[in-house]
Amino acid sequence: MDVALLGGTGDIGAGLALRLAHDTDHAVVVGSRDPDRARERAEDYAATLADRGASGDLSGLGNADAATRADVVVLAVPPYHVRSTVESVADGLDDETVLVSPAVGIDRDDDGFHYDPPGAGSVTEFAADIAPADVPVVGAFHNLPAARLSNLDADLGLDVALLADDADAKATVRSLVADIEGLRPADAGGLANAAEIESLTPALLNLAANGHGHDLGPRFC
Amino acid sequence: MDVALLGGTGDIGAGLALRLAHDTDHAVVVGSRDPDRARERAEDYAATLADRGASGDLSGLGNADAATRADVVVLAVPPYHVRSTVESVADGLDDETVLVSPAVGIDRDDDGFHYDPPGAGSVTEFAADIAPADVPVVGAFHNLPAARLSNLDADLGLDVALLADDADAKATVRSLVADIEGLRPADAGGLANAAEIESLTPALLNLAANGHGHDLGPRFC
Repeated sequence: MDVALLGGTGDIGAGLALRLAHDTDHAVVVGSRDPDRARERAEDYAATLADRGASGDLSGLGNADAATRADVVVLAVPPYHVRSTVESVADGLDDETVLVSPAVGIDRDDDGFHYDPPGAGSVTEFAADIAPADVPVVGAFHNLPAARLSNLDADLGLDVALLADDADAKATVRSLVADIEGLRPADAGGLANAAEIESLTPALLNLAANGHGHDLGPRFC
Repeated sequence: MDVALLGGTGDIGAGLALRLAHDTDHAVVVGSRDPDRARERAEDYAATLADRGASGDLSGLGNADAATRADVVVLAVPPYHVRSTVESVADGLDDETVLVSPAVGIDRDDDGFHYDPPGAGSVTEFAADIAPADVPVVGAFHNLPAARLSNLDADLGLDVALLADDADAKATVRSLVADIEGLRPADAGGLANAAEIESLTPALLNLAANGHGHDLGPRFC
């Protein structure tokens, strides 16, 4: 299938682009507000794969064109860009597009990292509120360490919690996650259960800041 | 050292009592509002160990006597009993006692399990607010599956997030956790970081309810 990574030039977008292109046969479309920048980054990712003797189906497009073409659209943008990004691509989405929300609202102060959700309760629910009513939203990839994802030499061995009210959309993303080596999909419930999963990201940042390790992700076992 | 498990007749208390008595040389004091019930449960736990050809240092006392004697006092009670339990043992606590808070506020509705913290922000911070000012509080054991902890045939292989503002108290609990086979202590920051760790417990319950597995705990890796 065609997977668009909106904000695919950022760090979580880069990690997902590289892993999907390297490990799967899916067509990966890097999206950006600037189509030229999207194409450049897609070429960079392809060069990273080529350096390893690998290849993948990578291209770059403006966010709206990327979303229109894709079966799965990942909002790989910071939480404060979720609204503008969804609005900018809404015309290209329909009930056959799965919209994926990986963003987490995080605040930092002298005590460390804290979960800072929007009024909707979670960024995932916020994305669902903004998305056109017929477009199913799936929360996923919230807890993945971007730098480790981008480093194809790094083993993952992590679980990806999935949140959705639409069973078909959840199954589509489950299959996408399972296609990436070292990631295991884990059904964490509906959109109403997203806050508890998003909260885990600042917890992982606090664990890393306190010496438990680097670039941590979760395993639910 | 002496470890009191207040509410040690409940399921998380039973699990900690069995694991500590089985795996370590610490004196484990089961506490209960009813001293007779505490003694009976301590005998039950000792019998469970004896059935395996093992033994441990297990006794039972009323909560106040258990707390007075102990170096580490674990509030193994439901969140709505934290206040009354701390108040009932406060006279026996001092700056050489470490108070451990493992409770999590969880709400359940048709959508699943949700984190439901008290006004203090987390149960751990609530316990710290109620404890005498000189008694250091450590958040720990929030995310452990009680049934698996109580089953000495079950492997754990889980991480225990620690939260404390007092470094010595945190080190004491870190050492206690490391003494239990299959548990790895993980420094998750100060008391202000407890909510993000407590939130993981309803997430784990949702993952189990949605088929990811049974009696789940976390690994931060």
